[in-house]
Amino acid sequence: MPEPLDEAAPETDPILEDPRLLPFLPMLYVAWADGDLEAAEMQWISDSVSRDAGFDEASRSILVAWLDPEAPPSAERLHRLLAAIRRIGKDLPRPERLSLAQLGLALSRAVGREPDAGTAGALAELEASLGLAAVGVGGSLLPAAADRPPLASAPSEPTYSEEERAALTRLLDGEYHELRQRVRRLLALPELAYLREPGRAAYREQVYAWCRRLADEGWGSLAMPAAYGGGGDAGAFIAVFETLAHHDLSLLVKFGVQFGLFAGAIQQLGTEPHHLRYLRAAGRLDLPGCFAMTETGHGSNVQALETTATYDPASGEFVLQTPHRAARKDYIGNAALHGQLAVVFAQLVLGGETRGVHAFVVPIRDAGGHPLPGLSIEDCGPKVGLDGVDNGRLSFQAVRVPRENLLNRFADVDADGNYSSPIASPNRRFFTMVGTLVGGRISVALAAVSATKSALTIATRYGLRRRQFGREGGEEKILLDHLTHQRRLLPPLAATYGLHFALRRLAERYAANPGDGERREVETAAAGLKAVATWHAARTIQVCREACGGQGYLAENRFGALRADTDVFTTFEGDNTVLLQLVAKALLADFRQELGDLNLVGIVRMVARRAGQAWADRNPLVSYRKGSAHLRDPSFQGAVLRSRQEHLVTSLAQRLKARIGRGMNPFDALGECQDHALEAAHAYVDRLVFEGFEAALQGSLDPALRQRLVLLQDLFALERLDRHRSWYLEHGFFETAKAAAIRSEVNRLCGELRPHARILVDAFAIPAELLAAPIAIDRP
Amino acid sequence: MPEPLDEAAPETDPILEDPRLLPFLPMLYVAWADGDLEAAEMQWISDSVSRDAGFDEASRSILVAWLDPEAPPSAERLHRLLAAIRRIGKDLPRPERLSLAQLGLALSRAVGREPDAGTAGALAELEASLGLAAVGVGGSLLPAAADRPPLASAPSEPTYSEEERAALTRLLDGEYHELRQRVRRLLALPELAYLREPGRAAYREQVYAWCRRLADEGWGSLAMPAAYGGGGDAGAFIAVFETLAHHDLSLLVKFGVQFGLFAGAIQQLGTEPHHLRYLRAAGRLDLPGCFAMTETGHGSNVQALETTATYDPASGEFVLQTPHRAARKDYIGNAALHGQLAVVFAQLVLGGETRGVHAFVVPIRDAGGHPLPGLSIEDCGPKVGLDGVDNGRLSFQAVRVPRENLLNRFADVDADGNYSSPIASPNRRFFTMVGTLVGGRISVALAAVSATKSALTIATRYGLRRRQFGREGGEEKILLDHLTHQRRLLPPLAATYGLHFALRRLAERYAANPGDGERREVETAAAGLKAVATWHAARTIQVCREACGGQGYLAENRFGALRADTDVFTTFEGDNTVLLQLVAKALLADFRQELGDLNLVGIVRMVARRAGQAWADRNPLVSYRKGSAHLRDPSFQGAVLRSRQEHLVTSLAQRLKARIGRGMNPFDALGECQDHALEAAHAYVDRLVFEGFEAALQGSLDPALRQRLVLLQDLFALERLDRHRSWYLEHGFFETAKAAAIRSEVNRLCGELRPHARILVDAFAIPAELLAAPIAIDRP
Repeated sequence: MPEPLDEAAPETDPILEDPRLLPFLPMLYVAWADGDLEAAEMQWISDSVSRDAGFDEASRSILVAWLDPEAPPSAERLHRLLAAIRRIGKDLPRPERLSLAQLGLALSRAVGREPDAGTAGALAELEASLGLAAVGVGGSLLPAAADRPPLASAPSEPTYSEEERAALTRLLDGEYHELRQRVRRLLALPELAYLREPGRAAYREQVYAWCRRLADEGWGSLAMPAAYGGGGDAGAFIAVFETLAHHDLSLLVKFGVQFGLFAGAIQQLGTEPHHLRYLRAAGRLDLPGCFAMTETGHGSNVQALETTATYDPASGEFVLQTPHRAARKDYIGNAALHGQLAVVFAQLVLGGETRGVHAFVVPIRDAGGHPLPGLSIEDCGPKVGLDGVDNGRLSFQAVRVPRENLLNRFADVDADGNYSSPIASPNRRFFTMVGTLVGGRISVALAAVSATKSALTIATRYGLRRRQFGREGGEEKILLDHLTHQRRLLPPLAATYGLHFALRRLAERYAANPGDGERREVETAAAGLKAVATWHAARTIQVCREACGGQGYLAENRFGALRADTDVFTTFEGDNTVLLQLVAKALLADFRQELGDLNLVGIVRMVARRAGQAWADRNPLVSYRKGSAHLRDPSFQGAVLRSRQEHLVTSLAQRLKARIGRGMNPFDALGECQDHALEAAHAYVDRLVFEGFEAALQGSLDPALRQRLVLLQDLFALERLDRHRSWYLEHGFFETAKAAAIRSEVNRLCGELRPHARILVDAFAIPAELLAAPIAIDRP
Repeated sequence: MPEPLDEAAPETDPILEDPRLLPFLPMLYVAWADGDLEAAEMQWISDSVSRDAGFDEASRSILVAWLDPEAPPSAERLHRLLAAIRRIGKDLPRPERLSLAQLGLALSRAVGREPDAGTAGALAELEASLGLAAVGVGGSLLPAAADRPPLASAPSEPTYSEEERAALTRLLDGEYHELRQRVRRLLALPELAYLREPGRAAYREQVYAWCRRLADEGWGSLAMPAAYGGGGDAGAFIAVFETLAHHDLSLLVKFGVQFGLFAGAIQQLGTEPHHLRYLRAAGRLDLPGCFAMTETGHGSNVQALETTATYDPASGEFVLQTPHRAARKDYIGNAALHGQLAVVFAQLVLGGETRGVHAFVVPIRDAGGHPLPGLSIEDCGPKVGLDGVDNGRLSFQAVRVPRENLLNRFADVDADGNYSSPIASPNRRFFTMVGTLVGGRISVALAAVSATKSALTIATRYGLRRRQFGREGGEEKILLDHLTHQRRLLPPLAATYGLHFALRRLAERYAANPGDGERREVETAAAGLKAVATWHAARTIQVCREACGGQGYLAENRFGALRADTDVFTTFEGDNTVLLQLVAKALLADFRQELGDLNLVGIVRMVARRAGQAWADRNPLVSYRKGSAHLRDPSFQGAVLRSRQEHLVTSLAQRLKARIGRGMNPFDALGECQDHALEAAHAYVDRLVFEGFEAALQGSLDPALRQRLVLLQDLFALERLDRHRSWYLEHGFFETAKAAAIRSEVNRLCGELRPHARILVDAFAIPAELLAAPIAIDRP
């Protein structure tokens, strides 16, 4: 009988008393503890040990008994095995990788027995055959060292200097950096602290009070002419709006309704008398107002509105009328409580004839807040979000306003009821009127991007603090070191940067008040970017919530409000699906103009020729190239993104032509190609976003900063190429191997961006007061 | 000077006084009114009319003046042109398609002038050259007929019989149809009507009262053994839970916490003494309890929990301790207010050694509702949703419970502190314990599907009532007749049916209490379907909200609550990303067993051989076939879906092997392949859903009903094939033309399903009281 391994051991088990078996203990433990081995595998181990290890009968029978699938060890015996391994091995070094065979041999040496060659060989073979040789889990059987880091550690320190962060913030902020800083400081004041479950009524009053505070700063009138107390700077107004969107979004919407939509409509659609009478008070919030366009039955199809404004030459008044319930003005911000005046969009009727949609100034409440005669006002009640905004419904029963209340910049009616307009085409007139509101779409898109930045900041910081899962027996891994977590957060972060740059560029073009041709481009870009940015916000905020798990579900951590409040961004200022169809139509129109030919047949012939050309232009070798340098070449990325847009628009034109040629109504033809039209519009927006990066990278930049932006651009572009790889494969742009290389490159880029994640969100410079409560995952 | 066309006309304009020009008026009007023609186009029209129409100088000069891009007509002149067309054409028939040339000729005839051949020819050529020949918008210039249908019409009538609807409901409901009907009737009672903005405190009490109401029906104890007042039918309990999910989801979660998790844990993890002591009261809600598993620092990684339960042999008690703040029990339902007892998961410590996670029954409140000594209880506060559930945090400071409070079905400790368990492997013991909770995952998945059905019902009915946009001058089109709208709603509807069938099948297998091998399959399927069904719910509810535009944003229309309440379903009962990784690991394990070989090298060789085999098995011609019959062949669809899963799992095994072979730690190897692992898991779930359809279609079915299910199955399968077409293209399953054919087939299927949309949602049989308020889009 061999000596017991350890006199102090309280356990008694034959296997612990036979030192020849000691090298096999780790593997034996894992074989049972893992719970994964089948009976056949146990038998196989048993057989091979019996055959090869050169044991005497006594040792062998102990081992075989331990490996009998019919008589598994009890939980207690198995635990004693582990306890023995731990006790004997307590002082052994624990390299990161320690195989079970190595551990077994080390245990044997620890008790002073050099294992013989037969044992070592049998052990190695056994381990290899079980597929465990490379696993290196031996270390996990040993007790944890005292210096093992705790499961959750302190937040990882930022890996950048404050100067670097500030430089990136300035780059993002652009020319309005100082103004944005002022807004940030104000939003961080205690008087603007979020309310906790205020109840809807108190919430609305708080938002109203906050809005006054912003008006007191003069921010409500930034876009108005100086003559009416304004700053004459539409860009500054947009910058304030964008920055406000890091705060409560009810405040943002209240601010946007009052100063952007209501005052903006008076400024853009009215003339000097209207400006003189209303602008100053509107800009100070002394005259709260509404923008009454949407009707219950007509959301995005504004041309079909049914409210009428009939001119009565006898009294020189317009008579506003809501013909039926579906024609009431619905969802009107400021209407339920605070609005005194409304800009109402209605069908102008002259002498029994409808002249299309025009805008009228209509008082709706008296000084005491009571609805004026003929007006009925309903509260929309609780909503999915934005409950700090008092949305309401307005109906008009023979409400009379003087003729001068027509906002008459683009059309007028004289006392006798004669109509005049500098724009002959009713269609063009309509689109000119609503086109002046394009600033709203740009602003909503920017606000959506701001909300996305808030969510990404919270989720990225959490992902850098929280740990989850790890190697057997090792420290848990930081969430953002998991590939899946990187794939969830980093491509949206890259797209957010791209949308930011593209929208800043667009806002600058818009604020520069461009001429006709460029204005139409601005309108198309605004429609496309609004749709994509608001969907991006909805998706990304959701991903961020999920990436914070249950913590993300606490109201204090902001995702709930961000999601619920931004949700309607995909609908208001134009339903996203409708907007993308407008984009597609505009792209087709551009196309037609560019070709300079009136004949549709001619167009199609040209199209076919150009398409052929485009195919020939592509170097067939390019589709096989898959090196990192090639994939990260912006000229490759840009060319591919642009080709996709061109190709989709061209083929859309061809499909429409084929249908119209067969005698189909154009509306129905476009209806059959709606999915294609949306894809073309998306491709166009991808290109705009990519060009946003290109614009941001022009000029001199600090090399480290440039490198970060280039990584973001690469990730954006390659993620889009990957997302649409089926299209590229189908159209011969890529070969299979290239598509696979792009996917790998996206993963690689995520890894390269990971160390920059912290500075990339910190540079958004969102005041801590506006973000989540700190999430408790640290040890005390 | 020719005679004026119409003596009564108040307008005077030379063009209205020259009858030879009359045929050109419609085209002239559109040329200007459309606002799209450029100067060059005007010039071109002018030139060609001058050349071809054979006018005298007077007529020509009038026309040329009207077409002068430098001198556009005023708005008023243009309007007079339209007014003249309308007046002259007021009695003309208005066929659906009327070209501008046809209208012009008809106008001429209406005033008694047969146009000459030259005019007709010039007109036709002009129209063709402008690309307007096929447009057929002439009718839109004429006044609307009195019989024109209103813009918004009454809801379209259902196109099915009540018998058909009831038959489909019975098919969906399966064996628990009667029970489900009882639940539906109860939920529709006035006492269960939703509260409107109750405030959090009142909301929680209401949900608690509702929950008692359900307990009074005996539904809380349906799954318990009859000996304790139960029904002994886990399937019935799940059916009730699934149906409850059409009501307020806070009630669902409260119900699930009390009867599913808390009582379920006692039933599944405890033994007879526990059952005797607790089950009856738990099932009646006389003993409200908590399921305290999750910790702040450890969500999905349950094995790493840090709360300890240390056995003190001196007193025969366990001492529960929360070692630090991150180890407090977090998000525990029923903890903040109502819970009196908790099942607490903690690391069992015996003689200084940790024995893994075990469950203990721990009283937390006295009869007066005050926390017991050593317990600190915190309220989680407001959440994104589910605010009717009182989630809280529990911390234990030396809380003592008797030894008998260990739920000892799978492991026990005797008075001396000796451990015993029928399951030797600690790993297998742990997974057996948590495996008993698989019913929770199935239930959550079913509830997610129920919530999705609610959203789809609301959105589909709205889409069948609301109209938006239409042909020029025509009636607006029903939303669900727009292809984009069909593409938004119908594929999710098909997937919802598929998930329903797959989950019902799974619930049946689960309720049948299967043996070891099948139980593991059930666990894997539950993990995969839970992840996919909850993500599907989040996405679909959002799509439905957007599909109802602003109406969808009103709280009364339910989407807000549905979204916010189901949001956390993607996180609780296991984070979805983590679950899909478990699925991938299980698929790899199956794989290994199937091959019956222990040697990893051998596995890889086999894998390579099988992969080659799979490739050869595919008929190369199949990848080119693209007829509708082929695409809709379920054996084609099933084979392709199954091949994708097999291929992804096989290649995942290969990639892992390559990394482990290079000496990489398996955890890190899987980390590098996480995206691949998720894709494999998704492919597996796609297959399960498809098989759900296959199971539903077995047996005899009414032909009309079968046809609808087949359309749903086709749409589900082809939408998935389309979604993953890049993968199929890359792996040679499809050629380009086939991928395109699949896309077209998806659109075609949407069109074919459109007439069945109403019955398909009505068959969900959700009581009207639980759905949205009727949305006002009808005329009065």
